[in-house]
Amino acid sequence: MNHRRLLLLSSSMVYGQDYLGHGADEILALLGHNVSHVLFVPYAKVAWDDYTQKVRTCFEKWGISITGVHEAAEPGIALENAEALFIGGGNTFLLLHDLYKNELMEPIRNRVRGGMPYIGTSAGSNVAGPTIQTTNDMPIIYPPTFSALALVSFNINPHYLEPGPSSQHMGETRMVRIREFHEHNPQPVVGIRESSMLRVDNSSIKLIGPQPAKVFRAGKKPLEISPGTALDFLEQ
Amino acid sequence: MNHRRLLLLSSSMVYGQDYLGHGADEILALLGHNVSHVLFVPYAKVAWDDYTQKVRTCFEKWGISITGVHEAAEPGIALENAEALFIGGGNTFLLLHDLYKNELMEPIRNRVRGGMPYIGTSAGSNVAGPTIQTTNDMPIIYPPTFSALALVSFNINPHYLEPGPSSQHMGETRMVRIREFHEHNPQPVVGIRESSMLRVDNSSIKLIGPQPAKVFRAGKKPLEISPGTALDFLEQ
Repeated sequence: MNHRRLLLLSSSMVYGQDYLGHGADEILALLGHNVSHVLFVPYAKVAWDDYTQKVRTCFEKWGISITGVHEAAEPGIALENAEALFIGGGNTFLLLHDLYKNELMEPIRNRVRGGMPYIGTSAGSNVAGPTIQTTNDMPIIYPPTFSALALVSFNINPHYLEPGPSSQHMGETRMVRIREFHEHNPQPVVGIRESSMLRVDNSSIKLIGPQPAKVFRAGKKPLEISPGTALDFLEQ
Repeated sequence: MNHRRLLLLSSSMVYGQDYLGHGADEILALLGHNVSHVLFVPYAKVAWDDYTQKVRTCFEKWGISITGVHEAAEPGIALENAEALFIGGGNTFLLLHDLYKNELMEPIRNRVRGGMPYIGTSAGSNVAGPTIQTTNDMPIIYPPTFSALALVSFNINPHYLEPGPSSQHMGETRMVRIREFHEHNPQPVVGIRESSMLRVDNSSIKLIGPQPAKVFRAGKKPLEISPGTALDFLEQ
C-alpha cells in the first residue's frame, strides 16, 4: 500500500450546498493536473444512467469528463485504463454485491496500490475499509461476504452523528451500534461527520473539513479528532 | 399458519417507562392464564446471562418464570417443551446468525404454527418477518442468509421514525431506505413506531398502542395506519 491516494468523503451532499460542493477543492487537489477523465461506479443506486449523468454534470464544470463503468463494454478493461476512480454513495450492500458480481474488487485494489486516485462518498467510502460492517444502510441485497476493498485498515462510518440532547428515541445510537460491532470485530472505526473527509497519501491519513471525526477502538474510549489531525496511528 | 398468536413490539423500551412497561398488558393478554413459564432467546446481545436476568426480573413481577434458551442443555428440546417464546432485541444480524447456528429456525416455525405464543421486541420482531432486510442494525456478523422466520408475510421496521422538521442531516431517511428495499424486494413493510406493536391472531393482524404505523408497499404511496386498525390486507 505504498502509493495510495484516496479521498474518502462522509457524504456527497451537505445541507445547503450543491452535490459534491463541499468536496470540490479536495477532489481537484487529489486528481491534480494530470487527470482529465474519471471512471465512475454507480452500482450503489438502481438508476445507473441518471446517477452517472448527475456526476458527469458536476465534474464537467471542473473540466473533467466521466464514464460510467456500466457504459464500458468490459468493466475490468475500463478500470485497467482508468486515470482515476470515483465510487458514489447509495446502498452499501448493493454496491458491494455488484462490485463482486462484476469482478472488480481485486482489480480496484491493484490499481489503487499502483497509485490510481480513488474518491469515495458515503457507501463508496464504506467499501474502502476492510468490511462494510459499519454501514448505516439496510441490507436490501445479500452480498457474498461483508469483506470489502481494505484500501485502509480501519472501518468507516459515514454520515456519523449523535442524537440531539432532547431526543426521546430509544433505538440504538450510532455509538452503541459501533460498540456492538467491536464486540465481534477488532479493527478501529472512524465516524466521519457529514462535510468532513479523510485524505490518504501513502501512509499519511488526515482529517479534512469543518467537523471533527470520532475514532472508536475496541475496549477504548472514543476519541474526538479535530480537523487537520493526522490519523496515521490507526494503521500502526 | 392457522394458529398464530404473535405480539410484535417495535421496542422493549419507551422513553420514561420501565423495561417492557408499555407492553405489559398486551404481553399478559397474549399469554393468557395458562402460561406460567416463558422461554427467552437472548442471542441478539452478547451478555446472555445478564440479559436473561433482566427479562426474568421483569416477568417474575407478573408471576411468570423465565428460562434462557442458552441455559438449557438442548435448545431444541427446550423449545419443543416451551409454553411460550420471547425473543428480545439487540442486533438483528447476531440474532439471526445464532438462531441458525443453534438450528432453531424450523423448530420455532413449527411451534408457532402449532399455536405457541410468540413475543418479539425490536430484533425479535424483525426476525418474525420473511427477511431481516429492513433492520436498522449494523451488519456486525455475517449470517448464512437474510431469510428469517416468516411467521408473517411482511417485513418489519422497528423503531420507525421520521426526521424532525429542522433536521439538516443528509443521510437517507428511514422512508428512503425502505424505498430502496422495494427496488429489490416485493413484500410490504410495516414501520412500527416505538410504543406500538402488532397483535396477530390466526389471520387477524391489529395495530395496538398510542402511535400510528406506516405501511410501505412496492410502487404505492405509504399509508399511515391508526391504532386499532386491522392490517389483515397485508397478507391478502
